[in-house]
Amino acid sequence: MDETIRNREFLKCPDFSVEMEKSDQELKKPQPPLEKAAAGGIIELPAFGGAVTRADYTELLDIRRSERSYSDRPVTREQLAFLLWSVQGVQEIRGINRYAALRPVPSGGARHPFELYITVKNVEGLEPGLYHYLPLEHVGEKAAAVEFLRPIEDMDKTVTDMLAGQSWAADAPLVLFFSCLPYRAEWRYGQAAHRVMLIDLGHAGQNAMLSAAALGMGSCCLAAYDAARCDEVLGLDGKDEFTVYAVSAGFSRV
Amino acid sequence: MDETIRNREFLKCPDFSVEMEKSDQELKKPQPPLEKAAAGGIIELPAFGGAVTRADYTELLDIRRSERSYSDRPVTREQLAFLLWSVQGVQEIRGINRYAALRPVPSGGARHPFELYITVKNVEGLEPGLYHYLPLEHVGEKAAAVEFLRPIEDMDKTVTDMLAGQSWAADAPLVLFFSCLPYRAEWRYGQAAHRVMLIDLGHAGQNAMLSAAALGMGSCCLAAYDAARCDEVLGLDGKDEFTVYAVSAGFSRV
Repeated sequence: MDETIRNREFLKCPDFSVEMEKSDQELKKPQPPLEKAAAGGIIELPAFGGAVTRADYTELLDIRRSERSYSDRPVTREQLAFLLWSVQGVQEIRGINRYAALRPVPSGGARHPFELYITVKNVEGLEPGLYHYLPLEHVGEKAAAVEFLRPIEDMDKTVTDMLAGQSWAADAPLVLFFSCLPYRAEWRYGQAAHRVMLIDLGHAGQNAMLSAAALGMGSCCLAAYDAARCDEVLGLDGKDEFTVYAVSAGFSRV
Repeated sequence: MDETIRNREFLKCPDFSVEMEKSDQELKKPQPPLEKAAAGGIIELPAFGGAVTRADYTELLDIRRSERSYSDRPVTREQLAFLLWSVQGVQEIRGINRYAALRPVPSGGARHPFELYITVKNVEGLEPGLYHYLPLEHVGEKAAAVEFLRPIEDMDKTVTDMLAGQSWAADAPLVLFFSCLPYRAEWRYGQAAHRVMLIDLGHAGQNAMLSAAALGMGSCCLAAYDAARCDEVLGLDGKDEFTVYAVSAGFSRV
C-alpha cells in the first residue's frame, strides 16, 4: 500500500466489523501500573492555589499563541506545580483494583499512557536538571510532587539537540517532555490503541498551553524532536517507553 | 514488521537524518484552501458574549468529566456559537497569500486540516439536521456562522449507527464530528504530517470539552465510530476527506 494511503488509514477508527485479536484485558492479563513509580527522593512543590493570574477561560482562548522567545525570568515552583497538575494531575482513582485514574484531560478508557518529564533550567528553588512528575502523590489535591532524576550536562546544547536544533526552545526556563508507555493502552485496546494515544496527547498538550497562558506565561508545542536523543537523555528504552511530544514554557521576552 | 511495533513507531517523530521526499510546499505547488467553502446558504448564529456561565479555568479543569447521559434541555444558538468558535474559530489570517489561520488551538505549521460538522437534534431556532461550521465568515470576531447541509432521516438511529452503537450519544442535543482533509497538512509536511494531525485533533477536542463545561454542559469524546457510515452521512469521500473524531455535548440529565 502506498505510504500516504497507509498513513491516512491510520487516522481513521478501525472497522469494528473486522474481528480483532482479543486484548490482554479481555484475556484477563494483569493491568499495568497507572504510573511509573519514583526511583529516588520525592520533592514536594508548594500548593498552587494562588499561581493563576489570568483565570478567564475565554481570555485564555484569545491570548494563547505559540511563544518562541523566552526571557530570563524564572518560573516559581507554584507555577510549575499548577502546570503539571493541569496536564496530568490525578483527581480521583476509580474502580476495583484502582482501575482508572481521572485527570483534567480525558484519555480513551482512562488509560493515560503518558509520563511527564521536565528539563528544568530556571525554576526558583529547584536545582537545574531532569525531573519526573509524580501525580499519584497528590490524588484529589491542588498540589504536586516531582522526583529529581539527574543533572543535565551542557543543558542548552542538550535540550537544543533533543528538540532537533530548535535552540529558541532551549532558552525556555523549562520544557515538558511527554513519554508514552504504549502497553498501558494496548492492554485494553490492542492495535486500536495507537491512534487514540496521539489524540490523548493533544488533549494534554492543549491544557499545557492554556495553563501557561493562565500563569501569564507563553508556551509552544513541539511535535518535532530527535527521538533517539530524547530517549537517551530521559533514560527511556525507545520500545516500552519513548518520547512523543514536548512543550516549552516560560515568560515572554517582549 | 509486527503490527504493534509498526503502530508504536507511528507515535514517534520521524528520524530527520533520513532524507524525506520534498513536500509539495517545497516543490512550490499551490497551497490548498484553508476552509471548505459553503455550498449553500449561510446561517448567522447570535454573538456569544454572554454564553459562558462558568468562566474560571481551574474550575473547568476540576469539573470536566465525560458525560454520557443527556437531558431534553435544548442548547441555544449562542451556546453552539461559542462551542464552535472555541474549537475551530479563526482569530487571524497571517502571511502572504493568506498562508496561515490562527485559531484557539495550535496546529502543526498552522495547517488546521479539519472541518467541523454538527448533527443538530435540539438547538433552539435551528431546524434539526446536518450543519457545517464556517469559521472564515467571522475572522477575529466573537461570532459564528454555519451552513445547513440537509435533514438527517431517522436521526436517533442514524447518529447511533455513526457512533458504532453508542446510543447514549444520540440522546445529546448535538454531536460535533471532525473531518480531516489530510492534504492540507501533507502539502507542508508530507509523510510526517499524519501523527501531528492526530495530536492536533486532541488540542481541538480538549477545547470542545472545556467549552462545554464553561457553558454548564457536559460532553464526551468519541474516538470509536463507524467510519464508513459517518463519511456517508457527512457526505465525505473517505479519501481526501474523512471522519476522525466526534464529541457529544448537552445538558446533563442529573
